[in-house]
Amino acid sequence: MSEESSGYSNKIEVCFSPALFPIYFQDKNCVVVVIDIFRATSAICAAIESGVEAVIPVSTIEEATEYKSKGFIVGAERSAEVIEGFDFGNSPLFFKEGKQRGKTIVLTTTNGTTAIDMAKDASKVVIGSFLNLSAVAEFVEKQDKDIILLCAGWKNRFNLEDTLFAGALAQKLNKNKRFSNLSDCAIASITLYESAKNDLYKFLDESSHRKRLSRLNLEEDIIYCLKQDIMNCVPVLKNGKLVNI
Amino acid sequence: MSEESSGYSNKIEVCFSPALFPIYFQDKNCVVVVIDIFRATSAICAAIESGVEAVIPVSTIEEATEYKSKGFIVGAERSAEVIEGFDFGNSPLFFKEGKQRGKTIVLTTTNGTTAIDMAKDASKVVIGSFLNLSAVAEFVEKQDKDIILLCAGWKNRFNLEDTLFAGALAQKLNKNKRFSNLSDCAIASITLYESAKNDLYKFLDESSHRKRLSRLNLEEDIIYCLKQDIMNCVPVLKNGKLVNI
Repeated sequence: MSEESSGYSNKIEVCFSPALFPIYFQDKNCVVVVIDIFRATSAICAAIESGVEAVIPVSTIEEATEYKSKGFIVGAERSAEVIEGFDFGNSPLFFKEGKQRGKTIVLTTTNGTTAIDMAKDASKVVIGSFLNLSAVAEFVEKQDKDIILLCAGWKNRFNLEDTLFAGALAQKLNKNKRFSNLSDCAIASITLYESAKNDLYKFLDESSHRKRLSRLNLEEDIIYCLKQDIMNCVPVLKNGKLVNI
Repeated sequence: MSEESSGYSNKIEVCFSPALFPIYFQDKNCVVVVIDIFRATSAICAAIESGVEAVIPVSTIEEATEYKSKGFIVGAERSAEVIEGFDFGNSPLFFKEGKQRGKTIVLTTTNGTTAIDMAKDASKVVIGSFLNLSAVAEFVEKQDKDIILLCAGWKNRFNLEDTLFAGALAQKLNKNKRFSNLSDCAIASITLYESAKNDLYKFLDESSHRKRLSRLNLEEDIIYCLKQDIMNCVPVLKNGKLVNI
């Protein structure tokens, strides 16, 4: 299909909570970008970029424990803390030294991995973070489909950091005029990103999850997760595993 | 309780969709402000301000039909249009001439009246609109309780106009420092309102519901619903009826 005939009619929706996803996910022939900036989707991008072969997202601690007993490297986080007995939580910094290169690892987190599971029947499930923003935008645009930006939020509540990323991505996609009328949630996300973009860290100063992470001395993680376009990978879900495109 | 000891610890949450309300409504000892700017809550304010004794909100057409057969004036709207056989839809302009003074009327709408029904077990249920913004802020602040600003949205989706009002109200409440840390949804709403406040009408130019109403030649309603502080009434729910405080 030529560029001229393919574009302009696709929609961008932003879903602010996994609890709203069934309302937006009416047609499975769409691309879902899962967003959990602090920190699941940032960690998945860091893993894949570091050379990890695949990340298996699982929803429950039980599944994670089973993989652990089989010898997998397993990350498990609940309420921002590493669960005892697992290899890591959801810190992207765990992958900085590239020690997991070539391995298939497993991850379960409070919000992010559940959101991935909800979206699994979509035409494509893509993992988005500030770290790989432009790479995701480029890949998603090529699919020529309606797009749902699924914010993992915090226990089904709205959160700021995921919305800011949704705004950054929606703005990039909208610039190329390949999408039709913006939805209210896309307009809101873009407006918020515009207000925040000069200093995301400062804008998030009062946000609930930044405070939660600060209390746990995870300031370094926060700063890292807000770095933009330092990675080129685009993790997508294939047969239950997140792999690079 | 003195001002000194009572304030500072109450929370303001903004619930962007009735579908998320159960997540935010954990403690019934709170004030819920129901918001459906285009047009249910604007119409309720206009009704009460015009001297209507009470508005009975009902969720279904069946209930509305029953009241109609008993001789009540009944408003019934679905998907922005008046349902045939009823006296009005949800246009606030219906009350401009004050012909319903002293009467008890009935209303059912696509989003607003259902949201009122969901909130009915709260300590106080208040009807908010730009028309009575400052009066609502003053009343709500006096209650000294946690506050949930419940956006009726559009068929459980996020909408801009309700969020802008939530931002305007949250900003007013926050100015007097009677509330503790703002939630992420309150920060987002206030930021959006700040971006839009100089020209709400223009900001909403691309919004889904303004377009929907424009197609139905309801431009006059839109302009009216965005007028700020032209009313002093504060409709609250008492025994299933909305009456002035």
